Amino acid sequence: MPAIPTDAVRVADVAARIGGSVRGDAGRLVSGVASLASATISDLSYFSGNRRGIQPDKTSAGVVLCQSKHQDALPSGAVLILVPNPQSAFVDVLEWLFPRSEPTKCIDPCAHIHPTADLADDVTVGAHVVIGAGCRIASGVRIGPGCILGENISIGSDTELIARVTVMNHCEIGARCVIQPGAVIGSDGFGLINEQGRWRRVPQLGRVVIGDDVDIGANTTIDRGALDDTRIDNGAKLDNLIQVAHNVEIGAHSAIAGCAGLAGSSVVGKYCTLGGGVGLAGHLTLVDGVHITGMSMVTRSIRQPGVYSAGTPLDTNDNWHKNAARFKQLERIAHRVQALETGLNALRKNDEENL
Amino acid sequence: MPAIPTDAVRVADVAARIGGSVRGDAGRLVSGVASLASATISDLSYFSGNRRGIQPDKTSAGVVLCQSKHQDALPSGAVLILVPNPQSAFVDVLEWLFPRSEPTKCIDPCAHIHPTADLADDVTVGAHVVIGAGCRIASGVRIGPGCILGENISIGSDTELIARVTVMNHCEIGARCVIQPGAVIGSDGFGLINEQGRWRRVPQLGRVVIGDDVDIGANTTIDRGALDDTRIDNGAKLDNLIQVAHNVEIGAHSAIAGCAGLAGSSVVGKYCTLGGGVGLAGHLTLVDGVHITGMSMVTRSIRQPGVYSAGTPLDTNDNWHKNAARFKQLERIAHRVQALETGLNALRKNDEENL
Amino acid sequence: MPAIPTDAVRVADVAARIGGSVRGDAGRLVSGVASLASATISDLSYFSGNRRGIQPDKTSAGVVLCQSKHQDALPSGAVLILVPNPQSAFVDVLEWLFPRSEPTKCIDPCAHIHPTADLADDVTVGAHVVIGAGCRIASGVRIGPGCILGENISIGSDTELIARVTVMNHCEIGARCVIQPGAVIGSDGFGLINEQGRWRRVPQLGRVVIGDDVDIGANTTIDRGALDDTRIDNGAKLDNLIQVAHNVEIGAHSAIAGCAGLAGSSVVGKYCTLGGGVGLAGHLTLVDGVHITGMSMVTRSIRQPGVYSAGTPLDTNDNWHKNAARFKQLERIAHRVQALETGLNALRKNDEENL
Repeated sequence: MPAIPTDAVRVADVAARIGGSVRGDAGRLVSGVASLASATISDLSYFSGNRRGIQPDKTSAGVVLCQSKHQDALPSGAVLILVPNPQSAFVDVLEWLFPRSEPTKCIDPCAHIHPTADLADDVTVGAHVVIGAGCRIASGVRIGPGCILGENISIGSDTELIARVTVMNHCEIGARCVIQPGAVIGSDGFGLINEQGRWRRVPQLGRVVIGDDVDIGANTTIDRGALDDTRIDNGAKLDNLIQVAHNVEIGAHSAIAGCAGLAGSSVVGKYCTLGGGVGLAGHLTLVDGVHITGMSMVTRSIRQPGVYSAGTPLDTNDNWHKNAARFKQLERIAHRVQALETGLNALRKNDEENL
Repeated sequence: MPAIPTDAVRVADVAARIGGSVRGDAGRLVSGVASLASATISDLSYFSGNRRGIQPDKTSAGVVLCQSKHQDALPSGAVLILVPNPQSAFVDVLEWLFPRSEPTKCIDPCAHIHPTADLADDVTVGAHVVIGAGCRIASGVRIGPGCILGENISIGSDTELIARVTVMNHCEIGARCVIQPGAVIGSDGFGLINEQGRWRRVPQLGRVVIGDDVDIGANTTIDRGALDDTRIDNGAKLDNLIQVAHNVEIGAHSAIAGCAGLAGSSVVGKYCTLGGGVGLAGHLTLVDGVHITGMSMVTRSIRQPGVYSAGTPLDTNDNWHKNAARFKQLERIAHRVQALETGLNALRKNDEENL
Repeated sequence: MPAIPTDAVRVADVAARIGGSVRGDAGRLVSGVASLASATISDLSYFSGNRRGIQPDKTSAGVVLCQSKHQDALPSGAVLILVPNPQSAFVDVLEWLFPRSEPTKCIDPCAHIHPTADLADDVTVGAHVVIGAGCRIASGVRIGPGCILGENISIGSDTELIARVTVMNHCEIGARCVIQPGAVIGSDGFGLINEQGRWRRVPQLGRVVIGDDVDIGANTTIDRGALDDTRIDNGAKLDNLIQVAHNVEIGAHSAIAGCAGLAGSSVVGKYCTLGGGVGLAGHLTLVDGVHITGMSMVTRSIRQPGVYSAGTPLDTNDNWHKNAARFKQLERIAHRVQALETGLNALRKNDEENL
């Protein structure tokens, strides 16, 4: 559905761009891109081979990227561009036809920039932005409207703070990161000690240190460390509304889906994934290559890579009520099963002796 | 407790307004409104018939809206106004006595409005607002302080963005919507493909399209679609801190409570309700009239209307530890029960043969 | 790791400050503070006695606060300062060596302050702030950049709104509170009544009333009451991304971890703790001293102090699938166990009669 902002392109040009071979009319024009389900005759789409919720033979797409082995799955009227990895090739096409808007490289006159902040020449700063003393903003950075940066913050080249992002004092953000609206980086951690029933705040003196190519979702919050730093390593991707507590460490190239919560000092290895709503208790470690499915609660360290889950399956409310009540009897049921086994064995023995 | 901002009103006037009949002194004055529990002699309250946590006979309310059949449940000293639907009638009274403040219909001088944005004459725009190129803002819209609107956004008549709402490029919002502070509409979806262990962003080209009479809660995030749009239909109501991922569709008149998370491409039908903290996995469909109780995880499509649940009941930590440990043995316990049944049947058969 | 902003200090001066006795070189200089794990020879650290994830004998810290009874757990090369409560003493040291930055006590010229707002002389107001009509801001309050305050709000002395906090009309905040970025206080509650399948908004006329010494985390949302007020009492501490619905009451000195959700009219007693991701259904009461572990769903009132839990333990995805499927058969399994018990007893009786 999204229309190509420049002119329509010919199939031959798309194929040349991504190194694909055309089956059908290479002169057909493509004026938009769309999913298989909603594409029309003028759209380019792709088929990854994954049929979940997709009926490739029913698509009205005019042009489809696919693997050679899947060409018969698509309607005979569609022009096909055969490539080894249709999904990657499709992203190549999207980046080519829908380039990100050029930054203005202007400083909005109503931005408040402290005189000691050091901004590269080509930084873009939107309206109502605040940049504090001692900040160091590298080349190509875009700071959207409403962002607030405290003091002594460093931001690496080409990173984009979309809008209304808050970054507190002393935090570091690497290069080529994208931070969505409403994210808060460097808020005080929930550091409290209990003195005679009253909570006393522990000063939070660490920083948040974010590597390169990290994405942070909308309204996600990342607390600064208490003493050591909270760390998010290169290539990690965080979705929306995630809570990252003080002194958490997230390894390189790990991805965390929305609404997850990582309690203080939890450590996530490299190449991990946490599903939506996953919760990590504090002071635990996940080794590299751990995958936790959605809404699971993790209360202990995980020492082996693999896929882990928790939770109970959805049921009708009536059935669920009955089964959930039995959950509270599980220990007793297990003991009853054991008693039955003992009783049955005794009877068996009796029977054998009586024979 | 809230005091009527204008003068006190007489019971007779309230009854006339809502078409109710008075039992008691129609000349009594009402100067405030309150719940049954906290109302005083000068307050108007209501009794819906629902006794959960309410002791209607203990109220000190001077005036109570109720159904005729419940009049004996209330203290004899209270003036009653009898109506068929006390809750609706009470809302009628609230809207009458506590009208929303009149918009100023002014543009704050420090708002940044792009010259190509098209605002109706009577739009209200607060301080520190940014409105981008090509936006179309209809009559009666109120844009509160600190809101940021990207480019080419359209907002329907009488919609209110309370404060500090962010709406990104190309999104559409219908008429008479109310969007609470901190909400983010049109952030980039969590669209990633994995190439040799590294995550690569997929350009997010779809929009968010919101119908009429939709409410969006504080700090709720709604991602734009990847190719097709994310859609929230007429009359849908979303509470606070909800995550709506790319290409989700929420049907008309569905309501979603706080902290829920809807993963990518999940589809919620019409007249559905999702309780607080509910999680929907991606690429699934709920038909119309599905109700999910709080904190349930939904991993498959639901094809029948009804009430569905998941989760385990709260218990003392000691008991829970024992029962939760048994959860991991459930498969084994089921097999042991089956073995017991086989063993018992064999013994029975033996016994019968021996008799 | 954090370096002391002023000069290095001598061990003797630290010990004198906190009333500790020195074991080792009282003249050693301390130039930073750090956790045991990351401290170097020039750092001050502490050992609370809790060994979770900590190897005290491996620390490189030059100076360690500890209890007398733990002195042998630490390396012989470390200078020790012996105190009865090392954690509290360490916080004393942090507050002394890392004092909060002095407020500027300036009003930023681009803040919008309504002429009827009443600000004490020494209030600090950051850039792009909006303060509405009739607000009352007490002595020493700091309102960071991007904060938006509606009308008739009162804020007690020395409270700090860090940045981009939104407070809506008529809310009250006590003294010495700290509110992190992105928090929303006083958004409209999710008050809806259903009229023939359509949702109708109920005007939300109550306030949020927050006591003294309360902390509110980043992007946490607190809805105003419907009629009565939403209340958070003295000394309560709320972490990030928490949803507090209308008419919730949170008792004094209770602490709530991130991602928790409290549905409408739920009441939390004093000295309670809710773990991360805990959900409270509406219209329930927790007495004083109730502790709920992480991600538990609470659907009924709790009348006894203690620790409560819900949920299922994490397992490998393969095992979990099998056990979770059995959860839906629990009622049937319980009946089968009962049938087995009846059958076994009958057999036993037979056997006894036959003997």
